[in-house]
Amino acid sequence: MKNRMHHAMQLAEMLDGQTSPNPSVGCVITKHGRIIGFGAHRFAGGPHAEVEALRMAGEAARDADLYVTLEPCNHHGKTPPCTEAIIAAGIKRVFVATEDRHAIVAGQGIERLRDAGLTVEVGLLQDEAVRFYTPFWQSIERKRPAVTVKIAQTLNGIITTGEKRWITSEAARTAGRRLRATHDAILVGSETVLIDDPALTLRSEEGIEPIRVLVDRRGRLSETFQVLHDGLNPTYWLTEQPRISSKPNVTVLVSTYSTPDQILETLYEQGIRSLLIEGGPTIQSAFLAADLVDRIDVYQAPSVLKGTGGLTGTVEVEDRFALTDVEPIGQDIHLRYERKGEWTCSQD
Amino acid sequence: MKNRMHHAMQLAEMLDGQTSPNPSVGCVITKHGRIIGFGAHRFAGGPHAEVEALRMAGEAARDADLYVTLEPCNHHGKTPPCTEAIIAAGIKRVFVATEDRHAIVAGQGIERLRDAGLTVEVGLLQDEAVRFYTPFWQSIERKRPAVTVKIAQTLNGIITTGEKRWITSEAARTAGRRLRATHDAILVGSETVLIDDPALTLRSEEGIEPIRVLVDRRGRLSETFQVLHDGLNPTYWLTEQPRISSKPNVTVLVSTYSTPDQILETLYEQGIRSLLIEGGPTIQSAFLAADLVDRIDVYQAPSVLKGTGGLTGTVEVEDRFALTDVEPIGQDIHLRYERKGEWTCSQD
Repeated sequence: MKNRMHHAMQLAEMLDGQTSPNPSVGCVITKHGRIIGFGAHRFAGGPHAEVEALRMAGEAARDADLYVTLEPCNHHGKTPPCTEAIIAAGIKRVFVATEDRHAIVAGQGIERLRDAGLTVEVGLLQDEAVRFYTPFWQSIERKRPAVTVKIAQTLNGIITTGEKRWITSEAARTAGRRLRATHDAILVGSETVLIDDPALTLRSEEGIEPIRVLVDRRGRLSETFQVLHDGLNPTYWLTEQPRISSKPNVTVLVSTYSTPDQILETLYEQGIRSLLIEGGPTIQSAFLAADLVDRIDVYQAPSVLKGTGGLTGTVEVEDRFALTDVEPIGQDIHLRYERKGEWTCSQD
Repeated sequence: MKNRMHHAMQLAEMLDGQTSPNPSVGCVITKHGRIIGFGAHRFAGGPHAEVEALRMAGEAARDADLYVTLEPCNHHGKTPPCTEAIIAAGIKRVFVATEDRHAIVAGQGIERLRDAGLTVEVGLLQDEAVRFYTPFWQSIERKRPAVTVKIAQTLNGIITTGEKRWITSEAARTAGRRLRATHDAILVGSETVLIDDPALTLRSEEGIEPIRVLVDRRGRLSETFQVLHDGLNPTYWLTEQPRISSKPNVTVLVSTYSTPDQILETLYEQGIRSLLIEGGPTIQSAFLAADLVDRIDVYQAPSVLKGTGGLTGTVEVEDRFALTDVEPIGQDIHLRYERKGEWTCSQD
């Protein structure tokens, strides 16, 4: 049974990053040991995972087992409730990896299924599922996007050398760009744009191009930079100075963006649920110091370079974060730190 | 793009073991960086992976990219050719992990797509796909099932102690039983039935129950043994002696079964495409000596036990097989050896 839920989790991970503001969900239906249907939610407003899987299984769904990574919804949103579809199809047993801690669902889906006489077992691969959905729940609860800081640095902690040059290898940069596809938006400070003039796109990587967010309090940027004139992806220009843009896809948001939490509040209002902060060290240090970071991805080269640009200030990473991944990428290494402790919603 | 094909491979692996005599195939369709459809072949006679994925994508499939783990079929089998469905849907580019070396397809699907003006790229994750499909191709070419030998032994190589007792831990036995779900049939010799009286089922493991094959040349077995009276799964009783069974699900096959290749020929004729040989050491040694084994899975406990039952004879495993996996399972270890060298079909 764990094996079936593992497949449902794989489906959820496959679609991760393209369902915002909804969570990504996977579903597998089995009968007599066979997979007779499977599905995943592909886009907000589209059919839910359970509905896709039931459609594939057809009449065979009667008396079958259904495995789903997140508690089925019991409310009318953009689609009818999944609980009713599951009951109508005649499913016998439902395995749910985790309850949905989102207040709108919060156990009601499971209750509805049990009331209808179905056997419901909750908790198969729960740890994995809770870890997967925590950024989504956190985002709703805190009304801010889940925040990942991506750092590319040398062995001696230099992030920027003050000139336009790569710190890590091509392979590590490709891995880093893949992170972009699993976040709704990328954020950089004006200094990074001034020095690197980056495109902040996925380039050849397949995936959904993220929104670009530029934090430019003092209004130092202009349309001469790639991100403000290429029109490739939606771009938010956050500034405290009056600025006008005539370029396609650029939205100027004039306000007081002096603190990280104000920035996150604004982005949440724009529908952004996950944010990758790519640079530079000053803005990354500010988010870390404000304790608004949920995950840190470090790509570290073996080189030692001169430079003044590394993380600054004091952040007690060892207290707040757990090292959850270490992998070699050629001569470089990738480290992942995730915020410690299982998050629990105040509705619990 | 590798990432997309990786997802298609995951779908193929998810359905592995339930599509026989067809191969398991996965398919992902993308457009503007989004997955708009995905599918897998679920059962022989059912829709192919490409057709499932196209159905999910609907009208959006026009000008999209399609990733498929195996060359699409171009012939009318139990379903119409996938090539025509792909062309009709307006797919622009097709990524194929590997050509199908099965003579009925063998490049014709790719040729048909290119003739229709589609861009076709072959070879994305090719090594992984070739490894995945080799047992299927081999089975057709050699007209015999792909053969895996599963060995549970002590540190000193004892497989059977002559009494009914477990050699490895519960965790290792669970892992071993999971192997059953990915093979069409399990084979044991009469000695194993006489000593252990095994059920040869998946028990609590989810998956398709395999066919049970008993090699009982001298006709020493009777309906008093579980496998010959529980009626749980289809069971072939291979014997050279006239035997009759009135039990459900038991088929007596009387012939001369003196050599491993004769046994495999008979099982292939019965539609079996993959075979797991579970014991005992005498019959396993016979298949190894005849060079009819494609994979060896060893579960080895740290215990040292007295006994006479280990593999016998001389098999140059180091020349013929490569060690492809080593993993700890508690105190036990799992080793996998696979036949060396990429298999190429004579039609190539």
